[in-house]
Amino acid sequence: MSSKNVAVVGATGLVGNHMLRVLEERDFPIASIKLLASERSRGRKLEFRGETIPVEVLAENSFAGVEIAIFSAGGGTSKQFAPCAAKNGCVVVDNSSAWRMDPKVPLVVPEVNAKDVEWHEGIIANPNCSTIQMVVVLKPLHDAAKVERVVVSTYQAVSGAGIKALNELEAQTRAVLEGKAPACEVFPHPIAFNCIPQIPQSDAFIDNGYSTEEMKMVNETKKIIGDDAIRVTATTVRVPVHTGHSESVNVETKTKLTAEQARAILAKAPGVVVQDDLPNQVYPLATDSAGKGETFVGRIREDISHPSALDMWIVSDNLLKGAALNAVQIAELL
Amino acid sequence: MSSKNVAVVGATGLVGNHMLRVLEERDFPIASIKLLASERSRGRKLEFRGETIPVEVLAENSFAGVEIAIFSAGGGTSKQFAPCAAKNGCVVVDNSSAWRMDPKVPLVVPEVNAKDVEWHEGIIANPNCSTIQMVVVLKPLHDAAKVERVVVSTYQAVSGAGIKALNELEAQTRAVLEGKAPACEVFPHPIAFNCIPQIPQSDAFIDNGYSTEEMKMVNETKKIIGDDAIRVTATTVRVPVHTGHSESVNVETKTKLTAEQARAILAKAPGVVVQDDLPNQVYPLATDSAGKGETFVGRIREDISHPSALDMWIVSDNLLKGAALNAVQIAELL
Repeated sequence: MSSKNVAVVGATGLVGNHMLRVLEERDFPIASIKLLASERSRGRKLEFRGETIPVEVLAENSFAGVEIAIFSAGGGTSKQFAPCAAKNGCVVVDNSSAWRMDPKVPLVVPEVNAKDVEWHEGIIANPNCSTIQMVVVLKPLHDAAKVERVVVSTYQAVSGAGIKALNELEAQTRAVLEGKAPACEVFPHPIAFNCIPQIPQSDAFIDNGYSTEEMKMVNETKKIIGDDAIRVTATTVRVPVHTGHSESVNVETKTKLTAEQARAILAKAPGVVVQDDLPNQVYPLATDSAGKGETFVGRIREDISHPSALDMWIVSDNLLKGAALNAVQIAELL
Repeated sequence: MSSKNVAVVGATGLVGNHMLRVLEERDFPIASIKLLASERSRGRKLEFRGETIPVEVLAENSFAGVEIAIFSAGGGTSKQFAPCAAKNGCVVVDNSSAWRMDPKVPLVVPEVNAKDVEWHEGIIANPNCSTIQMVVVLKPLHDAAKVERVVVSTYQAVSGAGIKALNELEAQTRAVLEGKAPACEVFPHPIAFNCIPQIPQSDAFIDNGYSTEEMKMVNETKKIIGDDAIRVTATTVRVPVHTGHSESVNVETKTKLTAEQARAILAKAPGVVVQDDLPNQVYPLATDSAGKGETFVGRIREDISHPSALDMWIVSDNLLKGAALNAVQIAELL
């Protein structure tokens, strides 16, 4: 594709920073780059391809001449500024949850539904991190055997909640090791040496008892795979891991798949790496996934409680495939 | 009951130590106590009710005059010595997996199947820690609505693997904080800031792809609740938590229960505490459970992927209800 004028909104955040690194590493064809952030980042400068670039404060007129804007700011920022950008003829790839379930906005994981990019009207949404890594594994199984129901429990890394959350994990861990009480600011309860069954860290729960993160996995899975008949239940849990979301996934299919068949299907699936060698204690691990772009799957076995289901363990870097990489892959489709 | 001559086998271990504390706290009627351990613990002394008691080396003749022996040693030790003890007229409460699935050995969680103690032939087995906390919650739901299938994913604390494992977590955590590589001896992979989908840490997997820990949850659940029709699939995962196992549990029932009905049933269930106040971010947490004897349940909701299922989050201290406390409760039934 021809070189593009690109803007990165939320460039100073954890995901924004990963976006810049992914754009560099994938040699994305960039004519010009504009780094945008909120008032708080005024005066900051960031490195990109060896140049030092000043961060500009995001405003409605920031998008003149910009062809692709990758947003990694909050939902509120996206709600306000993505339409301005789109009106200017810019295509927005948005990493927030603001537009994901909008019927006029494609929700895209390139390995799964790249062609949905075609019907965009200026905004394309990047899915939730936990959903992305699950659907790249579910889609090839769905094509082969029709996925009917999914029961997923997540083990989500702290970096998904941003830099302050990572700092809190470190401070709390040091406190506990010194026999002191951990202080909580970002998380509602201590995350060091604990598991918190609440994501996000505030305003998480809706009337049906699910968290908004859980409902993202339920609803986004159907939209991305393009089949409303897939039923999903999720329990999303924060664990004291820096980077790399892990997921325990039970998949009921219409046609029975053996573990061997599933492994063969997944070995050929784009973006998926099968790590499943039990005698050698090989299976996906969060710490191994950090910094890698693939989604790793292992512990694949036939569910002994169901005539046609599989259990598996899916791991991916939540900042890369779960956020920055997937967004840049969407931009590459344009 | 009249005071008993009691022996604790494996008294110097993490669970053995908790056994002594539980015997003290519950004022167990003890005429005499004998502390037994392997050759490695020769010469050690332990405190019990203010007295310093020398640890004796376990031998076949250790059980003369002993009425109740609580074993918390490895499966090999139990296989060898529990029959010797039973032959001497001693009743063994065994915390290893050696006897659990033996049809002549009752497998008991006092809140669930206390009456199974009656048919013992000298040995009573204490179930796996992950199973105990799950069945105290499942049993009242089974009585009310018949549990048909369970999909469980665990978040298991490091203390379940013993003192060396806890030391490894601490050493690895310090190493990572200092930017060094974590060294592994107990666990096959780093546990600090990671999730390992393998329990136990060696010889874990069987031919069907499940781990032995997972199969314990499958088989022990049926035996304790006394219904072979209950189908269970489990994925058991070690997380960097000191004490307190957490479980994400999906429960399919024959009769539909609302979340409110389930909460009402569990609020009255023995040994269970409902912690489920989402607006105030109240749900069970591993760190809160440590040192407590109850099993805590929250995040109770109707599964939107199934006409008659519930999702819930179950947490308990794996060394207490999951091991020492349950064993002492069994001894109290005698």
